[in-house]
Amino acid sequence: MDTDICGPSIPKMLGVETETIHVSAGGWSPAWAMDNLAVMSIQFMLPGRDEAIIWRGAKKNGLIKQFLKDVEWGDLDVLLVDTPPGTGDEHLSVNAFLKESGIDGAVMVTTPQEVALLDVRKEIDFCRKAGIRVLGLVENMSAFVCPKCDHASEIFKATTGGGRALAAEMGIPFLGSVPLDPRIGMACDYGESFFDSFPDSPACTALKGVVKGLAEQMGLERIGEE
Amino acid sequence: MDTDICGPSIPKMLGVETETIHVSAGGWSPAWAMDNLAVMSIQFMLPGRDEAIIWRGAKKNGLIKQFLKDVEWGDLDVLLVDTPPGTGDEHLSVNAFLKESGIDGAVMVTTPQEVALLDVRKEIDFCRKAGIRVLGLVENMSAFVCPKCDHASEIFKATTGGGRALAAEMGIPFLGSVPLDPRIGMACDYGESFFDSFPDSPACTALKGVVKGLAEQMGLERIGEE
Repeated sequence: MDTDICGPSIPKMLGVETETIHVSAGGWSPAWAMDNLAVMSIQFMLPGRDEAIIWRGAKKNGLIKQFLKDVEWGDLDVLLVDTPPGTGDEHLSVNAFLKESGIDGAVMVTTPQEVALLDVRKEIDFCRKAGIRVLGLVENMSAFVCPKCDHASEIFKATTGGGRALAAEMGIPFLGSVPLDPRIGMACDYGESFFDSFPDSPACTALKGVVKGLAEQMGLERIGEE
Repeated sequence: MDTDICGPSIPKMLGVETETIHVSAGGWSPAWAMDNLAVMSIQFMLPGRDEAIIWRGAKKNGLIKQFLKDVEWGDLDVLLVDTPPGTGDEHLSVNAFLKESGIDGAVMVTTPQEVALLDVRKEIDFCRKAGIRVLGLVENMSAFVCPKCDHASEIFKATTGGGRALAAEMGIPFLGSVPLDPRIGMACDYGESFFDSFPDSPACTALKGVVKGLAEQMGLERIGEE
């Protein structure tokens, strides 16, 4: 469920950008990116790919409610809610609308530099105040290994210790560091699976470690093994 | 003026993170990052660096109005408004509050990959609908040159032509490509001037080119020369 209303990128990254929503008696049908992966995003409702979604918070909240109430999700193992950065309307609404059913927890994603950690500390504080468990922290865009000479560069330098140090400081599980690999961005642009295309790459191994760690935190070891 | 209410990073990047706001009869005093650079951000009002700002859009709009009405900006050459990503409350409010005084224009910043351009196309559409001139587009995080072997890697690959192609497609000025340089992130983390520390680096040359092009678009050639 893509709650980034003004900048929906999930459909493109999952290769379902051209899908539209079908409405039936049962509700809105999500788009299927894989046999076991349904997606809902405002992107499916736009007349054109380039169209701006000029919406204030109140209108965003209404759509998020509809995504939860009117979409025929079926019998889900997991509902993954992708939010934009921040601690604003989208975050407050998701938390309010799911209060009764309960939220298993939140996953934090950062890049290594302190300017990014600064925002993530605020997100963690939000979770604490909202009573949402932090399942773990992932560090994305870690060291880059030159394809020509194998030299590793810290492009977004962890001047204060990066994700690992922040997780320790905050007492939350550290789920792993995903190195910068240009093929991840390309897979996103082409809507292809990085896991299928480059299963043995260090970035894929790191991402699988993140999924495994997360599944353990959620008591869903079965998913981590798949 | 930092309108990223939930994720204020400008004070840290400009080295004024520990400043607080002074209130006088004339209004709120901004923090001074340099002799000729005043800054206003919600960060100056927070009890702690890690404190979440859990605000819905309406509350954000109120603060943006205060930043414009109650801050003693003095006699400004330029008011630069930094917004978070998207086309939501912050963007609508800045545009509404400055409607009468007029807005010279907007600067778009993207990274090279299509998933990023997708959002920027929406921002450009927002500007068109809001009647805001687009002064130009900057491509950030372009090729990375390995410090060991000089090999250039496109980490965020421009699978659809990147910023330059988007600017041409949209008929807006292209202000330049800023290469990925780890020292930029470090300068931001340390609150130091990348311009002062690495004036001859390719990234600094590119950034100066962006400023010059922007000054030309705004009819402020004087600033481009400084």
